[in-house]
Amino acid sequence: MKDLTPAVTTGPLPASRRVWHKGLLHPEIRVPMREIDLHPTAGEPPVTVYDSSGPYTDPAAEVAIDRGLPRLRADWIAARADTESYDGRDPKPEDNGFAEGTRLTPGFPVRNRPRRATEGRAVTQMAYARAGIVTPEMEFVAIRENLGRAAAKEALSRGGEGFGAEIPDFITPDFVRDEVARGRAIIPSNINHPEAEPMAIGRNFLVKINANIGNSAVTSSMAEEVQKMVWATRWGADTVMDLSTGRNIHNIRDWIIRNSPVPIGTVPLYQALEKVGGVAEDLSWEVFRDTLIEQAEQGVDYFTIHAGVRLHMIPMTVDRVTGIVSRGGSIMAKWCLHHHRESFLYEHFDEICDIARAYDVSFSLGDGLRPGSIADANDAAQFAELETLGELTQIAWAKDCQVMIEGPGHVPMHKIKENMDKQLRDCGQAPFYTLGPLTTDIAPGYDHITSGIGAAMIGWFGTAMLCYVTPKEHLGLPDRDDVKTGVITYKIAAHAADLAKGHPAAQIRDDALSRARFEFRWEDQFNLSLDPETARSMHDETLPKEAHKVAHFCSMCGPKFCSMRISHDIRAEAQKDGLARMAEKFRERGDLYIALDDKP
Amino acid sequence: MKDLTPAVTTGPLPASRRVWHKGLLHPEIRVPMREIDLHPTAGEPPVTVYDSSGPYTDPAAEVAIDRGLPRLRADWIAARADTESYDGRDPKPEDNGFAEGTRLTPGFPVRNRPRRATEGRAVTQMAYARAGIVTPEMEFVAIRENLGRAAAKEALSRGGEGFGAEIPDFITPDFVRDEVARGRAIIPSNINHPEAEPMAIGRNFLVKINANIGNSAVTSSMAEEVQKMVWATRWGADTVMDLSTGRNIHNIRDWIIRNSPVPIGTVPLYQALEKVGGVAEDLSWEVFRDTLIEQAEQGVDYFTIHAGVRLHMIPMTVDRVTGIVSRGGSIMAKWCLHHHRESFLYEHFDEICDIARAYDVSFSLGDGLRPGSIADANDAAQFAELETLGELTQIAWAKDCQVMIEGPGHVPMHKIKENMDKQLRDCGQAPFYTLGPLTTDIAPGYDHITSGIGAAMIGWFGTAMLCYVTPKEHLGLPDRDDVKTGVITYKIAAHAADLAKGHPAAQIRDDALSRARFEFRWEDQFNLSLDPETARSMHDETLPKEAHKVAHFCSMCGPKFCSMRISHDIRAEAQKDGLARMAEKFRERGDLYIALDDKP
Repeated sequence: MKDLTPAVTTGPLPASRRVWHKGLLHPEIRVPMREIDLHPTAGEPPVTVYDSSGPYTDPAAEVAIDRGLPRLRADWIAARADTESYDGRDPKPEDNGFAEGTRLTPGFPVRNRPRRATEGRAVTQMAYARAGIVTPEMEFVAIRENLGRAAAKEALSRGGEGFGAEIPDFITPDFVRDEVARGRAIIPSNINHPEAEPMAIGRNFLVKINANIGNSAVTSSMAEEVQKMVWATRWGADTVMDLSTGRNIHNIRDWIIRNSPVPIGTVPLYQALEKVGGVAEDLSWEVFRDTLIEQAEQGVDYFTIHAGVRLHMIPMTVDRVTGIVSRGGSIMAKWCLHHHRESFLYEHFDEICDIARAYDVSFSLGDGLRPGSIADANDAAQFAELETLGELTQIAWAKDCQVMIEGPGHVPMHKIKENMDKQLRDCGQAPFYTLGPLTTDIAPGYDHITSGIGAAMIGWFGTAMLCYVTPKEHLGLPDRDDVKTGVITYKIAAHAADLAKGHPAAQIRDDALSRARFEFRWEDQFNLSLDPETARSMHDETLPKEAHKVAHFCSMCGPKFCSMRISHDIRAEAQKDGLARMAEKFRERGDLYIALDDKP
Repeated sequence: MKDLTPAVTTGPLPASRRVWHKGLLHPEIRVPMREIDLHPTAGEPPVTVYDSSGPYTDPAAEVAIDRGLPRLRADWIAARADTESYDGRDPKPEDNGFAEGTRLTPGFPVRNRPRRATEGRAVTQMAYARAGIVTPEMEFVAIRENLGRAAAKEALSRGGEGFGAEIPDFITPDFVRDEVARGRAIIPSNINHPEAEPMAIGRNFLVKINANIGNSAVTSSMAEEVQKMVWATRWGADTVMDLSTGRNIHNIRDWIIRNSPVPIGTVPLYQALEKVGGVAEDLSWEVFRDTLIEQAEQGVDYFTIHAGVRLHMIPMTVDRVTGIVSRGGSIMAKWCLHHHRESFLYEHFDEICDIARAYDVSFSLGDGLRPGSIADANDAAQFAELETLGELTQIAWAKDCQVMIEGPGHVPMHKIKENMDKQLRDCGQAPFYTLGPLTTDIAPGYDHITSGIGAAMIGWFGTAMLCYVTPKEHLGLPDRDDVKTGVITYKIAAHAADLAKGHPAAQIRDDALSRARFEFRWEDQFNLSLDPETARSMHDETLPKEAHKVAHFCSMCGPKFCSMRISHDIRAEAQKDGLARMAEKFRERGDLYIALDDKP
């Protein structure tokens, strides 16, 4: 095994420490955060930021990829005494696309017996929330979301435009419970993925981002995917979707889940299609159901289900410029068309919910008819499906299942808000989870940017989680650098959205970095940034010497032209009293004021 | 000289030809555009796009950097018979920062005698426009802005939200004249820069972008700057600002202007400061005036003038998180403070206008008090200055001078529109020219993205030109790659804004690229993109073979999962009639429809 064990990136980010806050209701919980130390001359406390990286950034943690992460939530789940462990489904050759011998990715060395709900109980966070129970997961989320919030209350006056969001000054565990009970937030937390650190996706919490990984029939391997997962969370991915297709799907997923500190999402249809040899028409409810059980037992935290693609909607896509661009959507459309039947996902959605509630797998109701081009944005097919997703949300909620709704896609700026408004209206405020949207089609190679623009805007309008787009979108599979670029771009979009929504804690980091900038604390500027390594290396390209790290100028303007240096002189002047009075005097003096009526 | 002559990038972009449209009112004018040829299987005409690259992308053009570009507008200017050529100001040692010997960048080999207006005449495009004269520059702009507009009229129904913009279906020369006469658009075109191809900056035209270049005391050289200028225009920069400081400013500028196909802007204050050894307090109206004449004679097309920074505003900046971040603003603030006097720029603005009108130098009224951090956005200092810029606009217009207004800076999304609305209100709809704005402070190294988000939004709201920000912002001087990344990012922002405003021709390119994508015309996808080289190389990383350029799938999904391939099957199905009827049938059949009241 050893030689097969993937190498992952570990160790803290610059000047950063992983710290823990203890629970009150649940003293056993330890909520991780990252503290960034500032230079002593700052005379400021460390800046606390949200930390999705898991144990990998903790030097004290023992990381062993072939053993997996500690099973953080195992005791919490057991203590609820509403689940049982059982033998679980036997792995089948088709689970790994009939890969054999050297082509077969070895299974994960450790196998834990899966758990499921007893006697058809609902073991979802939503069920507990509705029963008035504040779970450890909920308190964990409350503490996690409150980063620096107490400080913020004094420091910041609430600004921003929330478009109806109701972000409280301080988040209590019961607020989390209430949001989950109303379906306005979800805590994706399959009972078979106890390694994950609980997090919430909801409009009244910090905007989250998802990173997609996964191999395809054409390229990539298990080791690469595990690395990408760890790498993505290091830079801030809040959840990771494994979109693998091709062989070895089952085993690759096992390695990813056992080592993932964040919720893992999948599109079960992809594996189901592999099981029927890639022939969409041969898909059946039985194969799909078997795949759901398989993945639920492994610990997948949320399933993308394309149950909103209905037979009568398919003609609406025929005249589109780019047809159906969702893989799952196109597969289901082909199935419906071939059999001239309604989608088995739609017909069996009830039973799908029964599976989800037994493991607490959240739903990400897929937008199989999302627009794939500016020309197709907000069309009849897209909105018809969205309305159906609203119906399915009610069905899932009736079964105590947690739901979020997937959104587009390619949408020009002036059509973005309509998407958010309609989703809120039709889907009962279930969290919206959008891919971009891309605001133009003309920049392949830069679609992290075309979509980062749309993502920031729709995040501001109320989208709870933003699915990243990498520079390789439309062109190829993202490598390690593309994953990082995608994650950082989407952290920017999510943070810009938090600022605009008036999140009470969001601006703390901006202000700390701006003060560092104004005071020429270069190291602090690097360390407070989303990507310290890149910031530092760009600075050093022109001013490499250590001495320049304390220079009161930079290479852009040089010493003479440094506006910030001059501003300090001005501030010094201001200390000499009377500047304000001077100002008054000048305001009064008309002779310096060129009045318009003096002009020809 | 030869060895000193900069090497610049020449040659067409892939599948592209530079073509010309002739004038009607002025048959002598030839307006350049770029036609992108599509693959024969497309059965579509070439796509025409705006071309800012000048002769450098024309294989037929003879490029000789030490001779400069053809003097395109020389005859037009002479024909107006309202200017005279004269000896001009004698170059002085301080023009180049007293650089000598090997440290002195050689002057441009060819010297043309400068021209100026006779008898205090106004030779500005605004003066002609107000007199009802449609200049060749105006017709040039009309033809240039009409790219594919005729086709668009049939192809596209006007959509979008213009927030009061009045973009016509078709642009006539007289529409251009009228916009210039009202001050809603400018055509920066110094009579001493006849090499430039006329372009317009105005809310009712395509959104433009500016690229900043320029050396600093710390780094860079003439050859690099000329290369950057050509490189920036190759990728789409509509104007270039030379922000050089340090030695050799005069000679470097000469090389840039003589070879620039786009308008060149400067901040004369930078050179004035060099002339007084970098001591802000020693600046004087005389030194500044001398610098204006010097640069007007060289052919600078627009001056950034920080006349809006007034003594009484300085105290408003003292409690800011980042003080004054505009170089020009901080220099003037220091001067005002030291002398406890009103700014000489403000007091002498009348005389500044007299110089500008004699050469048709446009004004870019500088926002010396723009916010340098999220914390300082939209504060009293910023808006007080903006109101003053409104007053100065009226003064300049009274002298027939062309004006645009500079805007921020660092602004969170929810505060962006207020900037646009106030600018329109206070500055009589003079074109707005913004730097970004950056929507968060926490991502140094990625500020092309933090600002691209804000730029797209404010461009949508009505900003006429977007000043690019490169990844090096706040960290160092942009190199060639940074310039390209900044330009492409801002072309994305400008185009996204044109789409959202409902520009009638904007979507043509998106639709052509999306059709190519849907039809697996990979070459067309690359060639229609803003950066064909990057798109192609990213695709080839995973599917290098030429055969894959016609593959009906890509490495992201592989053949089995290609949604677009499946969509084609679906479309084929649809050809078999009756699919629509099927849809009807299914809409009626209630049994497949899970009604909510059937649920528990």
